[in-house]
Amino acid sequence: MVEPSAEEREAFAQGFDRLYGLELLAYSDEAVHAQVTVRDELKQPMGLVHGGVYAAIAESIASFATFAAVADDGNVATGLANATSFLRPITAGVIHALAERKHRGRTTWVWDVSFTDDAERLCALTRMTIAVRAVR
Amino acid sequence: MVEPSAEEREAFAQGFDRLYGLELLAYSDEAVHAQVTVRDELKQPMGLVHGGVYAAIAESIASFATFAAVADDGNVATGLANATSFLRPITAGVIHALAERKHRGRTTWVWDVSFTDDAERLCALTRMTIAVRAVR
Amino acid sequence: MVEPSAEEREAFAQGFDRLYGLELLAYSDEAVHAQVTVRDELKQPMGLVHGGVYAAIAESIASFATFAAVADDGNVATGLANATSFLRPITAGVIHALAERKHRGRTTWVWDVSFTDDAERLCALTRMTIAVRAVR
Amino acid sequence: MVEPSAEEREAFAQGFDRLYGLELLAYSDEAVHAQVTVRDELKQPMGLVHGGVYAAIAESIASFATFAAVADDGNVATGLANATSFLRPITAGVIHALAERKHRGRTTWVWDVSFTDDAERLCALTRMTIAVRAVR
Repeated sequence: MVEPSAEEREAFAQGFDRLYGLELLAYSDEAVHAQVTVRDELKQPMGLVHGGVYAAIAESIASFATFAAVADDGNVATGLANATSFLRPITAGVIHALAERKHRGRTTWVWDVSFTDDAERLCALTRMTIAVRAVR
Repeated sequence: MVEPSAEEREAFAQGFDRLYGLELLAYSDEAVHAQVTVRDELKQPMGLVHGGVYAAIAESIASFATFAAVADDGNVATGLANATSFLRPITAGVIHALAERKHRGRTTWVWDVSFTDDAERLCALTRMTIAVRAVR
Repeated sequence: MVEPSAEEREAFAQGFDRLYGLELLAYSDEAVHAQVTVRDELKQPMGLVHGGVYAAIAESIASFATFAAVADDGNVATGLANATSFLRPITAGVIHALAERKHRGRTTWVWDVSFTDDAERLCALTRMTIAVRAVR
Repeated sequence: MVEPSAEEREAFAQGFDRLYGLELLAYSDEAVHAQVTVRDELKQPMGLVHGGVYAAIAESIASFATFAAVADDGNVATGLANATSFLRPITAGVIHALAERKHRGRTTWVWDVSFTDDAERLCALTRMTIAVRAVR
């Protein structure tokens, strides 16, 4: 994995990703490391990090790394399916996300994303299926 | 389904749900209707509504309706798994969400959430599994 | 939906589908109705119908109906993802399967398959994603 | 992981698992290794191993290992959800399955199962959620 430049980091944090605070730390075409700092605005009514935050992180980092790898061939990458399992709540600190590529097909890539808290406990898992399509 | 009072509506929109703009329109223990108005802050870099927004909506409305039904028995409801399939992008207008309960078990409820755009086209589907647990 | 001819019915029941006893009752490009009669050979050690049986049925009927619709254009249909939720066990009688198409895309179709027992209780749900590809 | 005794191996292969030919090779409460030899009876009409076979293997080995770990406390283990992604077809040889436990909760365990062919290529992935419940 390589660390993104300040420009890449800034360009990465657009739209929804900026809204919830996604930070890209390192990436390659096989793995991505990113994080989000917990704040009250990311929580559901019981005070836990909202499940949608994990799903959003997985979607963004798997799509980004796939796109970075296929863009030169004139392709785009879009999420096809996002399956997230919630194992243990996070209520404070930092959400650490690690995406690992499991499959690189002609038309679909599959990534497994694991989320840990500051104590390195596994808190959520996402399987992301990304569609790779030629720009029309 | 019943429409929430102004107080319920206000109480519903906390934390992350307030951040991305979830509006609860009607609910029962079998169905929920909600919506989110698209804005640039909800998009991914290609200009489409971010996949995490659909996942977040499904998580919130299925959890809310389950909790509303089991709270009187001293139970809480938390997301166990969220599986979202993306069928067609939304770029403007309103995201319309309809959750329908498929299963009411002793320890898990299952909901199917469908998302449509202003032209009533199906754009995403979520299967939400909610765990029902006694407050400890 | 149309009922398959005796020849179609026979041709349908090949390989694994024949092994576990899948019977095709009716189909169209939007819905499929099929069934499997429970026998001890389809059970797991606790005496319930094995989860793999539901997954297999969903895979077969969604793939079959997609293929029937796209074959004339020189395409094949293969399973991309199969997500099955188990709601209530079946121990005897007939497993009734109804597949409903939710999405017909250029490269993926999505089907929801619901399984009921002889008392018409919902026992399992599968979301099937089928890839449509040109024959190479 | 420990290898099962001849008796355990025999007891393991009941009902549906015997029908499709599941062989348990080694297990612990954190991992399971099993295999199935491909034969025509396990295929779908295009000559590939049927998707239901992978789903069935994952269901059986994750349930078995969970049950082996919780039975002494008077609990049973049943499949709650089975999400399988198909990456590459297998047409001959042996299906090698490796289950790895990702989460051991009070009421749910989560396993990731990976399937490889004789050339050690990754062919399918299953995320299995197992419910742990007290015997009633």
